[in-house]
Amino acid sequence: MVTLNVEMKDVVQAYSRIRDYVAKTPLIYSKETSERVGSEVWFKMESLQIVGSHKIRGCMNNILQLSEEDLKKGVVAASSGNHAQALAYAAKLLGTTAVVCVPESTPMIKRHGVLKYGAKLVVYGADYNEAEAKAHEIEALEGRKYVHSFEANEAVAGQGTIAIEALLEKGDFDVILAPTGGGGLVDGLAIAAKALNPDIKVYGLQTDTSPPWYKSFYEKRLNNDCDFLPTCADGLEGEITWPNVDLAIRCGVDGIIVVSEQATREGVKWMAAKHHFMIEGSSAVCLAALFEGHEELKDKKVLCIITGGNIDLDKFTKICADKYDWE
Amino acid sequence: MVTLNVEMKDVVQAYSRIRDYVAKTPLIYSKETSERVGSEVWFKMESLQIVGSHKIRGCMNNILQLSEEDLKKGVVAASSGNHAQALAYAAKLLGTTAVVCVPESTPMIKRHGVLKYGAKLVVYGADYNEAEAKAHEIEALEGRKYVHSFEANEAVAGQGTIAIEALLEKGDFDVILAPTGGGGLVDGLAIAAKALNPDIKVYGLQTDTSPPWYKSFYEKRLNNDCDFLPTCADGLEGEITWPNVDLAIRCGVDGIIVVSEQATREGVKWMAAKHHFMIEGSSAVCLAALFEGHEELKDKKVLCIITGGNIDLDKFTKICADKYDWE
Repeated sequence: MVTLNVEMKDVVQAYSRIRDYVAKTPLIYSKETSERVGSEVWFKMESLQIVGSHKIRGCMNNILQLSEEDLKKGVVAASSGNHAQALAYAAKLLGTTAVVCVPESTPMIKRHGVLKYGAKLVVYGADYNEAEAKAHEIEALEGRKYVHSFEANEAVAGQGTIAIEALLEKGDFDVILAPTGGGGLVDGLAIAAKALNPDIKVYGLQTDTSPPWYKSFYEKRLNNDCDFLPTCADGLEGEITWPNVDLAIRCGVDGIIVVSEQATREGVKWMAAKHHFMIEGSSAVCLAALFEGHEELKDKKVLCIITGGNIDLDKFTKICADKYDWE
Repeated sequence: MVTLNVEMKDVVQAYSRIRDYVAKTPLIYSKETSERVGSEVWFKMESLQIVGSHKIRGCMNNILQLSEEDLKKGVVAASSGNHAQALAYAAKLLGTTAVVCVPESTPMIKRHGVLKYGAKLVVYGADYNEAEAKAHEIEALEGRKYVHSFEANEAVAGQGTIAIEALLEKGDFDVILAPTGGGGLVDGLAIAAKALNPDIKVYGLQTDTSPPWYKSFYEKRLNNDCDFLPTCADGLEGEITWPNVDLAIRCGVDGIIVVSEQATREGVKWMAAKHHFMIEGSSAVCLAALFEGHEELKDKKVLCIITGGNIDLDKFTKICADKYDWE
């Protein structure tokens, strides 16, 4: 099994490597959310990032380190959708070819993103793990370089650059909330944020419809024995692997918060109603955690990583049909 | 006596505080210097900073934290010249008044800089310490806030932002060279650089015409018992105080390198001849250290902080009259 090892210097080097290839995304204060929940709430808008999600950071950090020779072989990856688009974009930018495998649950908008940049899209399997097995088949068959979306030091270091960018813009956050699927983001954020300020708390977020991080993190062993239920947070769903949990424990992630599916849906609508931002369910878990009033967030300056904006319009309109007392 | 306490989180907050008020200065690779000395040499061009030196960073970080009430009282400081100009600029920007005391050795260009921004210039005493005593007199008499140029946490944290800016642009430096007068710069750089990458070495530089940092740092006690001789590095000359040395030892500064006055003069001419940059003698100590071939710099990626560009034209032309075998 892979053991991940990322230090602050790796995140710093990632930042210097990718800074000309990614957007410096807006850091936005939310008066509305702050007033509702009684904390000071800010959004780091990675949904406005190139290709609509933070995944381009880890992906770019990886692909920019490939040798000329490896680059010529082309790249391959599995993804729930956002890494797929990022890799397609990065491969095109650097003049090579990409094959990406996504499970059948992948939203159409993310599939279109892949095709838009000229990559080959393989839709395979019921979940991420089946898509990943397919991608490794293609790796072996075609000799392509596998670019992992979270279980790679390069991915973790790349996602960590978000913390650097945000904290240098506003230096006094108490808490960072990180939507957690594979775990590259929560790992990278913890490594970078704690190097800049050891007092900052970093929490990973999952929905109660897919909480294997919660079980694995606190039990300190891989535990995918969950009731996986349908979720609007397609980027966070499904079984996980051990290396990113192991790194999360070692690098001082402060906890995993599980939020309800309903509060997550409410978060999507809240962002649309109050800020006119379309965000993924996978990002709305940050709002869900704030709405639910978790103790760790009370009276704090909270940085929410809004990881992506790639949500299908029909799913979005269905979520917006729910009614709330704040409307 | 003051005890300085600065951590990375203070430098991060300083960065977020001052970033809209200071320039992001160029980071320049020097092919010529690299080929001559056999290391990879880069310059962080704080000589192109607002008011022509890095001092605006610490100064701005200090003055932006003053209360409305304190700001109304006006500010006062002593300086060998660059902090004086920075404070004059900052005070004008924030709509208050400044009095700055400089010793008689202060170059005309730095005096003019002070007057240009509408501050009151008091030329007093043979050295920095005499000017400082005068500034404290004015502080007591007029009730102004004293803004120290190096012996203040705010100054140290402000100068440290240079390391953040440089390392996020290029993340793989081995060594940072910091001209060292009061010591705010070397302290701040060590704190920030080592938080970003613990492997980076940070050295303070002085000339052999004014080496009290060398004595004090290695003897771990204040020792100003030096033969002070005339120097082109007016920003680094004279007696020092203990708090910044104490902090340098505590925050892991790796050493103090003493360079010759002659190599420093050569550095000024080298930068003019090879790069068409006019830099202060106080900044040219970085080049001097490289020319002299100190062991610590061999085969390394070296970041030179070119702290300032405020050199009198007549002094500059005299230095350029020296002849070298590389011409």
